[in-house]
Amino acid sequence: MTNFTPAAKANQIVNPRLGYPIFDLEVHCIHEDPHQVSQYLPLRYRKRFDQGYLGLGMFNFDQRGGGFRTDGDVPGEQVFATTGELVRRQLLEPYEIEWAICTGQLYCLSILPDVDYATAVASAYNDWLINEFIPQDPSFLVAISISGSDPAQAVKEIERWADHPRVVEIMMPSASTMPLGNRFFHPIYEAAQACGLPIAAHTTNEGKGISPPPTPVGYPSRYLEFHSGLAANAMSQTASLVSEGVFAKFPDFKFLLMEGGVSWVLPLMWQLDADWKRLRQEMPLLKEKPSDYLKRQFFYTTQPIEEPKQTRDLIHTYEQIGGETQIMFSSDFPHWDFDDPFKILPGTTSAGLKKRILRDNARQLFGRKLRALEGS
Amino acid sequence: MTNFTPAAKANQIVNPRLGYPIFDLEVHCIHEDPHQVSQYLPLRYRKRFDQGYLGLGMFNFDQRGGGFRTDGDVPGEQVFATTGELVRRQLLEPYEIEWAICTGQLYCLSILPDVDYATAVASAYNDWLINEFIPQDPSFLVAISISGSDPAQAVKEIERWADHPRVVEIMMPSASTMPLGNRFFHPIYEAAQACGLPIAAHTTNEGKGISPPPTPVGYPSRYLEFHSGLAANAMSQTASLVSEGVFAKFPDFKFLLMEGGVSWVLPLMWQLDADWKRLRQEMPLLKEKPSDYLKRQFFYTTQPIEEPKQTRDLIHTYEQIGGETQIMFSSDFPHWDFDDPFKILPGTTSAGLKKRILRDNARQLFGRKLRALEGS
Repeated sequence: MTNFTPAAKANQIVNPRLGYPIFDLEVHCIHEDPHQVSQYLPLRYRKRFDQGYLGLGMFNFDQRGGGFRTDGDVPGEQVFATTGELVRRQLLEPYEIEWAICTGQLYCLSILPDVDYATAVASAYNDWLINEFIPQDPSFLVAISISGSDPAQAVKEIERWADHPRVVEIMMPSASTMPLGNRFFHPIYEAAQACGLPIAAHTTNEGKGISPPPTPVGYPSRYLEFHSGLAANAMSQTASLVSEGVFAKFPDFKFLLMEGGVSWVLPLMWQLDADWKRLRQEMPLLKEKPSDYLKRQFFYTTQPIEEPKQTRDLIHTYEQIGGETQIMFSSDFPHWDFDDPFKILPGTTSAGLKKRILRDNARQLFGRKLRALEGS
Repeated sequence: MTNFTPAAKANQIVNPRLGYPIFDLEVHCIHEDPHQVSQYLPLRYRKRFDQGYLGLGMFNFDQRGGGFRTDGDVPGEQVFATTGELVRRQLLEPYEIEWAICTGQLYCLSILPDVDYATAVASAYNDWLINEFIPQDPSFLVAISISGSDPAQAVKEIERWADHPRVVEIMMPSASTMPLGNRFFHPIYEAAQACGLPIAAHTTNEGKGISPPPTPVGYPSRYLEFHSGLAANAMSQTASLVSEGVFAKFPDFKFLLMEGGVSWVLPLMWQLDADWKRLRQEMPLLKEKPSDYLKRQFFYTTQPIEEPKQTRDLIHTYEQIGGETQIMFSSDFPHWDFDDPFKILPGTTSAGLKKRILRDNARQLFGRKLRALEGS
């Protein structure tokens, strides 16, 4: 582990617009040049990374011409999270963000064909992120990346970083070759529980690499379809995690879904609870109904936040799924569908819930590390 | 087409408990012996059907030991829909059902490897259903089966039966090798529109035959997971139908989802409408927002009805997705998770909505054929 100087409290916001500063769960910081990462790779992999990067053979859906925002505050400027200074000027200051988790870009490492390469890339990427990117701003926290396809090596990577003061979660893709509840993955969850870090599963690589097609009926043709497929996949993963007994087996384990939406979980809870009543002999590990586990151990990020005609419909859904503790704001900066924290949940009458989403829930979930950082 | 005597009004219910008799969209009538169907097959296929039936190589999830109810009114009796007399005694009379659509058992014909065999089986099955099963009770209506994997032959099968007085819809599997919005399927939708029959897509063969795995992350291990995957697949199919412009291109086409749940469509509508606002240049055919098409041209059956703690939450969802015209009761008789029409939507304050679901919406959707039958 690299030596690390505790942050000065340079991230304090004076007179925040909302009355409190914001906690952002998702900043996609970016390495400008593959060499930044590959310098940390074993020699045999460097050329592969530099020339092929990940070699996923991605299909591409049109997302208004590209994945990044184009509304930088310098005319013609792209919005890019390549340096701490850019993130501070384009995100942290204007949106009054006190803490931001840098998730990076590598939420595809479980679906690369070469599992050893994937594991090596995870390590090198964490080295780059923690040694070079995070020190650039005192607001930055880290989600380390792992590949789920070799749990033993993933556990080693988790243990390598678990005590780092700024490492607050473990990121793996929601895309995988088998459902995430499968016991193949349990050593990872056990290690995450042991070191008190949530697993954050990031969507959007569904159907790529060696994963099955992104829908149970093959490949769609438009981004809008692909996008709704992410929620559909999240439903499958959630059902798998619950019914394989992950939450029952690891009661302090916490699972955080990133960019998978939120509202689909309410009808899913209805269905899982009803099925569980009739089929519980299939799942002897489950001592409570599926929604009880989900309301305690399953967390969500907001981006892309759903937009019903009436915000109160969203609030109603949030309340029923345990949103007062489980939902947290993420900006997805610098992607094109960035959510502005000052504009989400317009006209809501529930200022308390909004504050919990924009700040308190994350501070509670990551409390142990935050207290150490802020106490210093 | 077989000659058919119009039904006598023997299906009239005197003094119905709810004040009105019920319309049931889904009775899985069953052939007791493969010969009943294979006698209608070309010689070369008979042995294959008799010995291998469908040859899907199905995986099996535990569903309390089997797919059928075991609570017949004769002690120890299975509940089986093998004859009209059994269906009348076990379903139509006790539940006061005036009309029941016989959907049969073959909602897997798009995912058999041999497309010509699948098409031949569809024809033979329709022959059996219409010549032998339907005449057994005056309450029976028919959903003919087609295989979606050869649209040209499917169109011929649709045209063969379109004018039959009791044929009210066209059934195909929701499981398929590509999303149902794909233009490969458009000739089927065009033919369905031309003869005024809805396409009813039945779930539960997802992941079987030659279809991709039932989730975007492969095969789950429990029925509860598989079951939630059906809603997830329905979301992908719905997004595909909308974004490929099926509803815009065929404005009188109606799509009916069977056994896929209902409530997931509300968050899906939110997401599709929001994405459409930003990405509509991807979908020039769409003149209205996705939810507008869905509230007019997309229909749902209730079984298995979702069961939130408070029925009013379900009613609230139903109201927002156009349930007052789009949702219809199905019993799924004789399957183990049969829904009792007298018990669904308990304590609801909206008697009007309940009546629309149990009777009026179906009578409206199938109005043309019903008027002809009842006028006779």
